[in-house]
Amino acid sequence: MSSKPHHHHTIHGAHHHFGWDRSFPPAATVAPGTTLEFDCLDSSAGQLTPSSTVADVATLDFGRINPTTGPIFVDGAQPGDALKITLDQYAPSGFGWTANIPGFGLLADQFKDPALHVWNYQADTLAPALFSTLAKVPLKPFAGTIGVALAEPGLHSVVPPRRVGGNLDIRDLSTGATLYLPVEVAGALFSIGDTHAAQGDGEVCGTAIESPMKVTLTLELVKGANLKMPRFTTPGPVTRHLDAKGYEVTTGIGPDLMVGARIAVAEMVELLCRTRGMAPVDAYMLCSVCGDLRISEIVDQPNWVVSFYFPRIVFE
Amino acid sequence: MSSKPHHHHTIHGAHHHFGWDRSFPPAATVAPGTTLEFDCLDSSAGQLTPSSTVADVATLDFGRINPTTGPIFVDGAQPGDALKITLDQYAPSGFGWTANIPGFGLLADQFKDPALHVWNYQADTLAPALFSTLAKVPLKPFAGTIGVALAEPGLHSVVPPRRVGGNLDIRDLSTGATLYLPVEVAGALFSIGDTHAAQGDGEVCGTAIESPMKVTLTLELVKGANLKMPRFTTPGPVTRHLDAKGYEVTTGIGPDLMVGARIAVAEMVELLCRTRGMAPVDAYMLCSVCGDLRISEIVDQPNWVVSFYFPRIVFE
Repeated sequence: MSSKPHHHHTIHGAHHHFGWDRSFPPAATVAPGTTLEFDCLDSSAGQLTPSSTVADVATLDFGRINPTTGPIFVDGAQPGDALKITLDQYAPSGFGWTANIPGFGLLADQFKDPALHVWNYQADTLAPALFSTLAKVPLKPFAGTIGVALAEPGLHSVVPPRRVGGNLDIRDLSTGATLYLPVEVAGALFSIGDTHAAQGDGEVCGTAIESPMKVTLTLELVKGANLKMPRFTTPGPVTRHLDAKGYEVTTGIGPDLMVGARIAVAEMVELLCRTRGMAPVDAYMLCSVCGDLRISEIVDQPNWVVSFYFPRIVFE
Repeated sequence: MSSKPHHHHTIHGAHHHFGWDRSFPPAATVAPGTTLEFDCLDSSAGQLTPSSTVADVATLDFGRINPTTGPIFVDGAQPGDALKITLDQYAPSGFGWTANIPGFGLLADQFKDPALHVWNYQADTLAPALFSTLAKVPLKPFAGTIGVALAEPGLHSVVPPRRVGGNLDIRDLSTGATLYLPVEVAGALFSIGDTHAAQGDGEVCGTAIESPMKVTLTLELVKGANLKMPRFTTPGPVTRHLDAKGYEVTTGIGPDLMVGARIAVAEMVELLCRTRGMAPVDAYMLCSVCGDLRISEIVDQPNWVVSFYFPRIVFE
């Protein structure tokens, strides 16, 4: 880990909100260029703890899902600007959970029962985390939810990501990445939460290694950027924590990308169960925290190829 | 490059066919475990050459697109088996082309005019290939079309990939990868072609660095595998030729993965034009040969995030 970046403000976890609303009062007002530390709760807002069991998944209060810490009013931010967010450092807690939540996830129709895995990982070394005796998952912390307020008034659900960001769940928004979000209201009203110790592209079971964390970041403005969608830059490679031993890859081929993705993931679950003796729901949750959905081709009409890449290193 | 693997058969390019048909006579019959060398034509079957111009794209004969070399009858292969294909070595030619073909490609509605870029790359060193003075593209040769015959009689178009493989255009079927295909007819009837010197995940403009090549591979059988879709294993990392300097990433967010993919690629084209002074069609073709489409999340209902990763190393 690098040394701790200097920050001017700390936004404590008590300053959290559920959903997006331009009328939420700011937790702080800062000048562009300010570095802040955010205390992020886990995505259950503390409902799940190191001693939780699967019974607690069944009784989760969804009105308290995905708290975000903020919002921050950035002086001078106006609609049409972009908010530039440099993700300086994640300080993970060492506790995490992954759940199959009924009704949620890419294969919700096939995995109807709740399941829970509680992780204890080394927050200082970020050594690969044990998934019982079955696998060791490399860690790469990031925030799943990073966004600004929408122009439209009223309360908007935190679940779907939108053109202003929010619940993007982009695995590569890790240390060093720079994210640009379109500003739609004066001050931008930036918030962050849903921190993950690891996730694969797709987050296929619907949860990652959900983990409370501190995040240090710097907020800047790009005036008049007129961005249509979030974009970001990574300072270096994005999969080297996973790729050293190569991948097992399954495919889903056909005219619908969603169906292709579902086939590819279901085939990987089947392969892991058959070759590793895993229970299906364990394979599904493991896929969510370390496997990647990619679109291999999207032009050979009428059939597209979606591929699911499972990193072999987790079994080494 | 590694030393040339020993092979028992050479299948010359004259033994090519267009489309898939279980009634095509085999070019050779081999025992499982045989290593063969295939002479693969480019995907225009020689219609485009190092001296071609954009005028030749407009007059391409589509009846002669994607020739594949074969088919090979594998002794003992029966429906229900899997054909295991180990891709031992690619020997590229040094000539390649990338085209925007009207009516073909992810953004065909936005790029209606034909375009052509002819590549001359170093076949021995596989040094990154110059895209005029704009970029240098790392190379990783593979075959876009690898498949076996369908159970259904008659001639089937070569364009769409299917459960038996075919025009998969999977960038990571490069040297050392092992592909498993479901066998549907006696002897499997294996063919290969559409060799590419480089391609990004998605092949977004519809073509890669299309390049004639020799391919050495080994065919084996897994009896009674009952595979539903192609799957493969890579022996090591798959993006290290691209990832050293990180990525510029654009996103497309919404309830339809195809729309999201189109937005992400269009936003990257716009970004490259604005920051690099490229013509839109050049940016589009460059995205196709080195940029990757990934699904960042597919569970945060109702909006999914498709991301397009452009490797910064091509501008270094």
